[in-house]
This record gives sequence, C-alpha cells and structure tokens, in this order.
Amino acid sequence: MKITDMKVTPIAFADPPLLNAAGLHAPYALRIILELETDEHITGIGEIAGGSSVLKGLEEARKVVVGMDPFERNKIRIAIDKTFANLTDSLNIGYAHKGAARRMYSAINIALVDLIGKAIERPACDVIGGKVRDRIDFSAYLFYKYEGAGGRWGFGHNPDARGWDKAKEMEALTPEAVVEEARAMIKEYGFKSIKLKGGVLPPQVECDTIKALAEAFPGYPLRIDPNAVWTYETSVKYAPLLKQYLEYYEDPCKGQDAMARLGHVCDIPRATNMCTTSFEEIPSDIQKGATDIILADPHYWGGMDATIELGRICSVFGRKLSMHSNSHLGISMMAMAHVGVAVPEISYAMDTHYPWQCEDVIKGGRVKFDEGAIVVGNEPGLGVELDHEKLEILHRNYLKCGIKDRNDEIEMQKKVPGWTVSKHIF
Amino acid sequence: MKITDMKVTPIAFADPPLLNAAGLHAPYALRIILELETDEHITGIGEIAGGSSVLKGLEEARKVVVGMDPFERNKIRIAIDKTFANLTDSLNIGYAHKGAARRMYSAINIALVDLIGKAIERPACDVIGGKVRDRIDFSAYLFYKYEGAGGRWGFGHNPDARGWDKAKEMEALTPEAVVEEARAMIKEYGFKSIKLKGGVLPPQVECDTIKALAEAFPGYPLRIDPNAVWTYETSVKYAPLLKQYLEYYEDPCKGQDAMARLGHVCDIPRATNMCTTSFEEIPSDIQKGATDIILADPHYWGGMDATIELGRICSVFGRKLSMHSNSHLGISMMAMAHVGVAVPEISYAMDTHYPWQCEDVIKGGRVKFDEGAIVVGNEPGLGVELDHEKLEILHRNYLKCGIKDRNDEIEMQKKVPGWTVSKHIF
Repeated sequence: MKITDMKVTPIAFADPPLLNAAGLHAPYALRIILELETDEHITGIGEIAGGSSVLKGLEEARKVVVGMDPFERNKIRIAIDKTFANLTDSLNIGYAHKGAARRMYSAINIALVDLIGKAIERPACDVIGGKVRDRIDFSAYLFYKYEGAGGRWGFGHNPDARGWDKAKEMEALTPEAVVEEARAMIKEYGFKSIKLKGGVLPPQVECDTIKALAEAFPGYPLRIDPNAVWTYETSVKYAPLLKQYLEYYEDPCKGQDAMARLGHVCDIPRATNMCTTSFEEIPSDIQKGATDIILADPHYWGGMDATIELGRICSVFGRKLSMHSNSHLGISMMAMAHVGVAVPEISYAMDTHYPWQCEDVIKGGRVKFDEGAIVVGNEPGLGVELDHEKLEILHRNYLKCGIKDRNDEIEMQKKVPGWTVSKHIF
Repeated sequence: MKITDMKVTPIAFADPPLLNAAGLHAPYALRIILELETDEHITGIGEIAGGSSVLKGLEEARKVVVGMDPFERNKIRIAIDKTFANLTDSLNIGYAHKGAARRMYSAINIALVDLIGKAIERPACDVIGGKVRDRIDFSAYLFYKYEGAGGRWGFGHNPDARGWDKAKEMEALTPEAVVEEARAMIKEYGFKSIKLKGGVLPPQVECDTIKALAEAFPGYPLRIDPNAVWTYETSVKYAPLLKQYLEYYEDPCKGQDAMARLGHVCDIPRATNMCTTSFEEIPSDIQKGATDIILADPHYWGGMDATIELGRICSVFGRKLSMHSNSHLGISMMAMAHVGVAVPEISYAMDTHYPWQCEDVIKGGRVKFDEGAIVVGNEPGLGVELDHEKLEILHRNYLKCGIKDRNDEIEMQKKVPGWTVSKHIF
C-alpha cells in the first residue's frame, strides 16, 4: 500500500471566550485536518492544533509521506525527523527543533493509525496493542470565562441556546458561577471528575472555587491547573488548603526545578503538561523528581504509538499518566479515546475541551459521551468519518476569520488594554 | 477473533559442546514451541528457551490466554502479569516475580504478533510499526569448544560433515583454533562482525584470541563477552589492551555497580545482557550510569512490542541497543530479524546462535543468511511455518534425552570433575 496524497486543510470553529493564564480564547479556534490517501482508496484522517508554522511544516512533511507505505510508521517517523532536522534555514521558523518534527509526525501518526485500522478492519486501538478497557472517563474541564459564545456570534449570544449551550455562554468569574457552569456541563455529559483551568483570578479566589466545587460535588476528584503562573511561594502557600480537595496539582509553578522543590514540601501529586512535554525532557524530570503524573497528549508526544511508549516509561520510572487537551473536534476526540482505552498506564479521567465546541467535521453528529466516558466500539480505525461539507464550511471560516495563529494575549488586550502574559504572575 | 487453544511443545535439538562461563552446553538444547490457535483458523507460532518451570508456567498462562482476542495484546499482557503475581505459593517456583510473567508473555507476544501479521496479511514487523531497514546484520558468534557435535552424536562426530558443519565439530581452545572457527563460519554465513563468548579461558588467552581475530579479520568490529566472571580489577586491567579492537565490552564484570565503576576508567562502550535484563532494572542502570548498550532480547523483555518500547527508552536516556541470543531455532530467528528491521534504535549487528544448530522446526529448510544479514520480506507474520513432523521429531528428542532443565555446570563436571561456577572467577 502506498500513500498517494496528504491533504492538509486548516479550519476555524467557534470557541467561547475562555480565560487562561495566557489570556483569552479568540472567537475562533484553529485546527488542521489531515487526510492520508492511498492507492487502495483507504483514507486515514487526523487532526492537530492549527497555526501558520504547523501548516507550513505539514506541507514539508507531505513531500516525505507521499509514496511511503502507511504500515511503515517507524520509517515515516524517522524520515520526518530527518527532514525537519535539515530545515534550519530555509523555513526559519524553528523547525530544526525536535519538537517541530514530533508535532508534524503526531498528526500523521494519528492518520496512519486510523488508516491501518480501516485497512485491517479493526479499531484504531488494536493497531497500538488493543483495549485494556472498553471505556475511558473524561473530566469536566471548567474555565473562568467572559460572557458570550464565540464564533459567528463573536463574543455575543446565540438567542436559541438552551441547557449547556446556554450555560456556556454565561460569564463565569466567581466560584458560584463556576459551580453553575459545572452543574450544566455535568448534567449534559455525566462527568465524574472536575478540572479547573486556573491561573486567571487571584489564587485565593481560585482556591475558593475549588472549595465551592468540592462542596457542590462531594466525592468528585478535583484538579486545578494554574498553568505555571503561580510562583513557587504561592504554590507552597495554597498547597495545605488545596490538599484536602485535589486529586492532583497541575503545573502550579514554572519549570522542573520549582516543581521538584514543591515535591519536597507538598504531598499533593504533581502533574505536568508544561515542564515535561517531550521525551527529551524526561531524563531531567526523572533525575530531579519534578513530577508525579505526566499529562500525555498524542498530538504533541508523537502520536498514538508514542503514547504507548510513554506509558511504558511512566511505569518503569514510577510516574502516572493522564491526558492533556486543547480545543479540538471529533477526530482528536476519538484519537484520545482510543489512546485512553489502549494505554494501560492511564489511570485518571482525561482532559477534553470537546464540550466547549458545538461544530464538528465528522459525519453523524458529534461524539457521544456515556456518563462522562467514551465507549470505544469495534468500528474500523478511529470510528469516525470526515464530512467534507462540514470541513468546507469550517475551512471557509478559517479563510474569513483572519486568524492565522493563536494569540490569547492579543485577544485579552481587546478586553483589558495593556494586559501582558509576562506581568500575569501571582 | 478468539484464541481457542495454546499448544505448548517442549523440544530438544543437537547442540555442540560450547563452553561459557557457566560451564558446558549439553548435547541437547531445550526450547518450547507455542502454537496459538483461533476460531478463524489462523495460527500464530512462538519459540522460547525451555525448562521445567517455563513449561509449567506456560500451562498456567494457557488458562489466561484461551478465549481472549489476539489483537488485544495489551490486555493479555496485563492478564498474564496478574496471574503470575497471584501464583506465589501454589507453584512455588518464583513465579510471583515479574520476570516470570514477562518471560511467559514474551513467548506469547511473539506468537500473537505472528498471528496478527498472518491475519492482516502483513509481515510481523508491520504489527510493531514497520521496517526501518530491509535487512539486519548478525555477528559471527564464536565459542571456545570441545571436540564434537552434540545431539545424537553425543560429543562425537558426524562422519559426513563438510565445510562449516565439520569445522564446528572441531576443538577450539586456542586463539588459532578460534580464528579457524571464525573463518569457517564467516565463509558459510558472510558475517561482518564477530562476537567471542569469553569467560572460559584465562583472560590473557581470551585477549590473545581477540588480537588474533583482529589480525585475521581487519576492519571487523569485535566484541568479547566474559559473562561477568572477570573481576572488576581484571576488567580494568585488560581494557587498555582490548580498546584498540573492541566495538563493545560485554559484561566483563558483575553487576551495575562494578559496570558503572568500570565506565569511569574505561572508554570502551559497555554492553550488558546481565546487569540490566528487565525494565525494572533500567532506573538504577540510568541512575548509576552502568552501561552504554542494552542487549535486548524479545524472549526476555516482553516480546516484540516491548523491544520497540525498550528502543524508545534507550533513545530517551542515551543508551544504544543491540541483541542477545540463546541457542534457538528458526521461529526465534525470524522473531529476532523482524525486531531487528523494525526497532529504529538497534545499531549493531545482532547476536545469534543459529549457525551452531543444524535442525529446525520450520518448513522449507533453515532460515537463509545473505552476507551475514537476514532480509525480511513481505510474507505474512514471521514468514515461517511450523513443520509438524519436524516438531514431533524434536519433541521425541526431548522425551528421550532426559534433560528437563539446562545445567551447564553439571555438564562441565562430566569433563572436569569438581568444576563449579562459583569458583570460576578470573
């Protein structure tokens, strides 16, 4: 079997005005959809975070991938690595860094695993060793937010919204409002654990929010993720208060050294998606004892195969595994779900932004949750098919919206003049 | 697809009187052949080192595997782990140790990968991510030896032997004789690098052998493996002499601590198949800096998938990867070859005992070498089929030969009364 083409389609879809340590989500979030076509007319699909450098990089990757056998993903990975290692000057956008090659390959690997699953008529998880569980739990991913819906409504409202769709348009800047947000999301999706995106309001308010969530949802595992804008001192200061509520403490402070020091004085398990985000950063993480839990993400670590390998590393070195997420659509949703049922070491409900979106590029409606989990069936590949009409609509969104790169800081400055990431430290 | 049966057949085949640090090879070597049968009439085959505890263990593993889906090898691995973790007292042969579960699963994993390859009509290497190379080099694996052929000839001769078959019956206890052994093996197989099994004669004689080989085969990468019966002091003493000849220095002395110390005073790359033989031993190897090269073996590390994972660990922690071998037949030969073409990190010619055997259990003659390499083609699975007549012959050998467990020390005592492993230290 040979890959005959790799179609790369940038898309934009409505995203609510969610707040985070880097600023504010723009009305549109960017993704890129990949289609790997073969001479046997089987197509594999993938999805990855958008942006102009990724788009340019995938065009380079395309030259490598076309003509290769989709089953030979080890060879494709190495070819991509070599290509990007040699691109230093011509593109001049940092592609020589291993991370760039890995990001390109991540998207391609997801499409390859989907393609192989379809070719052998087995679910994608079977391509990476098969299910260890039939369903994988996700957490309710809560945000502080401004009022509004994003997308074609800008930051305004959809007058027809009901239920969770209405709730997610509401402002949520207090503990009480976040509890209401949680109630609506959990009612809709059935999640059984909760993650709060922190690093937005003063730490005491965020701790009060965690306390309010703990009281409103007794027994629910809780997490907070200040995205490393708390200082080491702040992280230490709030640890005793948070300890009674938290399942894990995600990136309160910045860097492996600070996280390692935190481990000496705080016995809440420390999770990261910031200080250890690649295989290259694992040795120093281990040596320093920087973290307890790695938040894997097949979109950054090298795809679905790489998450199996990361799982093995975690079991060998006594780390646990959970999952990070960006704003995403249904192809990524299913890639994450297949990884979630296949990787033995994943032992927490995984993160997903999916409830915050309302559009998609897949046929037959959005991916369904069953009591907060995704049940992975036996459909070939990722179990979803690309809807080319929907893809075209979201591609036109991309062309019209004018956003080529995510920049939460600039978006925030539209609301709070003079706001900068560098000064946003607690 | 469901596994309906797992047939476990112990076999014995002729093995020449090869010397090593543990004593002497008996006239018969033991292996166990696995056949995983399915409700879709596709069978996967595997091969593993024999012995009574492995045989008993595989009978336990059989109870777990039957009824499972062969594609779900992550789930099977965990089920085997759990089974052996719970077997402490009933079998009373150390099965509760993780190594036992991993060894059982290793054999099963090879059969699963073969089975899946056959089911999807792709070579076994494609099940673990596909080829990164089309051929994999092996090394000429030289032994000091007594005269004789092993097997039905006991330690006598096959009067019809010619070429390498004749050469391998000759005594080889001097540098000159080992050079002749090398010439015959290399003429027959075309190997381009050489490994000497050491730890047999006094270190100076073994170093002289390496020197003689270097002179007879200029430019050939050389290795010596004293199987950790040299003291730390001896290992240090001979390092300056060996440095000019060796590609790597395999387990000269015993244990991660001694190997780590050796690294401080010796700049020959250190390889191991003794101080780091499982994922559990990796963290201390890394922390101590005990080795430079891990000699993987899918028969011990958890199968073919696990070798991909080990490769990733090696690349992350700056280790290189090569391959260990025991006396084996064609199924193992092909499992090793498929691993060899698929695992990107393997960067040395791999070890194999295959030239020392003359029998096999596969159809169509023994596996062929092409200038010291095995070329992995596109035949489904491992690319070899079990010959049940040959299997029956070697199974009858097993029943007749009376050997149930390998014990090179007892075999050696027949030649050298009073010889003991514990006193065999240089």
